[in-house]
Amino acid sequence: MTGELDFIASLRAIATAPAARGLADDAAALEIGGTTLILTHDMLVEGVHFLPGQDMADVAWKLVATNVSDLAAKGARPVGALLGHMLGENDDRFLAGLRQALEEYQMPLLGGDTVSAGASGKAARTFGLTALGEATHTPVPSRSGAQTGDALWITGPVGAAMMGFEALHNGVLDAETAAYRRPQAMLAEGQALAPLVTAMMDVSDGLLLDASRIADASGVTLSIDPASVPIAAPERRRDDVLRWGDDYQLLFTAPTCAALPCPCYRIGVVLLRGDYPLLLGSAPPDIARPLGYQH
Amino acid sequence: MTGELDFIASLRAIATAPAARGLADDAAALEIGGTTLILTHDMLVEGVHFLPGQDMADVAWKLVATNVSDLAAKGARPVGALLGHMLGENDDRFLAGLRQALEEYQMPLLGGDTVSAGASGKAARTFGLTALGEATHTPVPSRSGAQTGDALWITGPVGAAMMGFEALHNGVLDAETAAYRRPQAMLAEGQALAPLVTAMMDVSDGLLLDASRIADASGVTLSIDPASVPIAAPERRRDDVLRWGDDYQLLFTAPTCAALPCPCYRIGVVLLRGDYPLLLGSAPPDIARPLGYQH
Repeated sequence: MTGELDFIASLRAIATAPAARGLADDAAALEIGGTTLILTHDMLVEGVHFLPGQDMADVAWKLVATNVSDLAAKGARPVGALLGHMLGENDDRFLAGLRQALEEYQMPLLGGDTVSAGASGKAARTFGLTALGEATHTPVPSRSGAQTGDALWITGPVGAAMMGFEALHNGVLDAETAAYRRPQAMLAEGQALAPLVTAMMDVSDGLLLDASRIADASGVTLSIDPASVPIAAPERRRDDVLRWGDDYQLLFTAPTCAALPCPCYRIGVVLLRGDYPLLLGSAPPDIARPLGYQH
Repeated sequence: MTGELDFIASLRAIATAPAARGLADDAAALEIGGTTLILTHDMLVEGVHFLPGQDMADVAWKLVATNVSDLAAKGARPVGALLGHMLGENDDRFLAGLRQALEEYQMPLLGGDTVSAGASGKAARTFGLTALGEATHTPVPSRSGAQTGDALWITGPVGAAMMGFEALHNGVLDAETAAYRRPQAMLAEGQALAPLVTAMMDVSDGLLLDASRIADASGVTLSIDPASVPIAAPERRRDDVLRWGDDYQLLFTAPTCAALPCPCYRIGVVLLRGDYPLLLGSAPPDIARPLGYQH
């Protein structure tokens, strides 16, 4: 076994239940009782997803917001969360950020586990959050429903998180970094859009990479007009921004005539599957650079 | 903030939803869609819950079984699991144990997250599992319903895990260590007992410690007859065994006249709350030694 892709391929062979959606979606969708539950679990690891010394309130916020963003992509309303917490320094800040984020998204804390990092002091701190939601519309949006002729849309600009990340590395600790430190999950937008979209996901790993995932899951080609993508960064950074994640906008396909319930930006079109999952205009993107954050 | 108890007290102030049961139970119980979901999340940390070099198939088994045991204590049937996995060595063994355990408990894998341990090599491997179940009986058994005059019962012997742990440390790697490496969750027993019990939990941290938790949650005193506790260890180790966990038997209270649906051992009686949560016969246990594993 050589890495994450092999491991996930092996997990996929185990996760054969329809609710698992082949582990190829933002969340599981499970019909139970008279409702459809949306289930997601994300982890944050020190040194991988956050840096030692970062404000633990921001880490807790991000842990909650990234999971809620997966619920948003399914048009779900939050029902509750379970926290896996490794004890360590500045836990009071972690609790403060956790409380703020749970209140922001009206998601009750239901349980979880608290563990020690061990006596060795070797452990990188690791946190997990399971978010449970309830679908507000069925069928639940997936990545696989994009139809030829649909338009491709995004709910807002990308790039603010990248600019915030760079500012944070330059020692700026104010409002300029908030987009990176305190991402917002598009819950209201996701619920409003769910009845109208043919495919939807949140942009967590980079617009180009995530768009290619919709294309692959749907068996189509997406053509993005890069100039039409709204960006929150200097124009000269446009190409970087298209490959950077962490903004958590919703990316979706819908018929061109759809009456969208919230401000959205039309950035492309769905084509019959061709040689490439993704085109920038009519040419494939430069793949010498990664399309996004592979983790 | 000085440690786990402080942290959990602070979490409790956040987790005020009734479904969270004050974070004082084995699992959350959430009514939704006409059914009652049971939700639990446990973590395993290298160096804390398992040792470097341990067979990762056993680690994965234990991760599943300990969570399923929490479902068993609620009389729930497994519905699905989300895995939080940190990549590392012997992931093929981890997958083998995971598959075995999920099959054993008929619990579909629905999703989760796979993360890298980072480039530093510093991370202690950490895993999390969220198990989702559906209650087969309501009200869902809790720790807080023990009634004065009830009897205290256990579903089977304790001590096999302790003996297995010690054998493993002595380099024995065969059937003698299985009780520690591959604990069994008492799912069938939990479902059969749920309609009859007044309080129930799984013995994960030690019989005396876990019994004191039922006593505290119920506002009663439990008197255990130590000689009546079935043990799977030499008689001279009886006191050790009562303070050792990891056997995952179910501990419950029920009226003395209850017609129990499975073989169980009567080990004590529920008394009006006195000076101590727990008595061995009529005297409190020696608290110079821990009552169980505090983690």
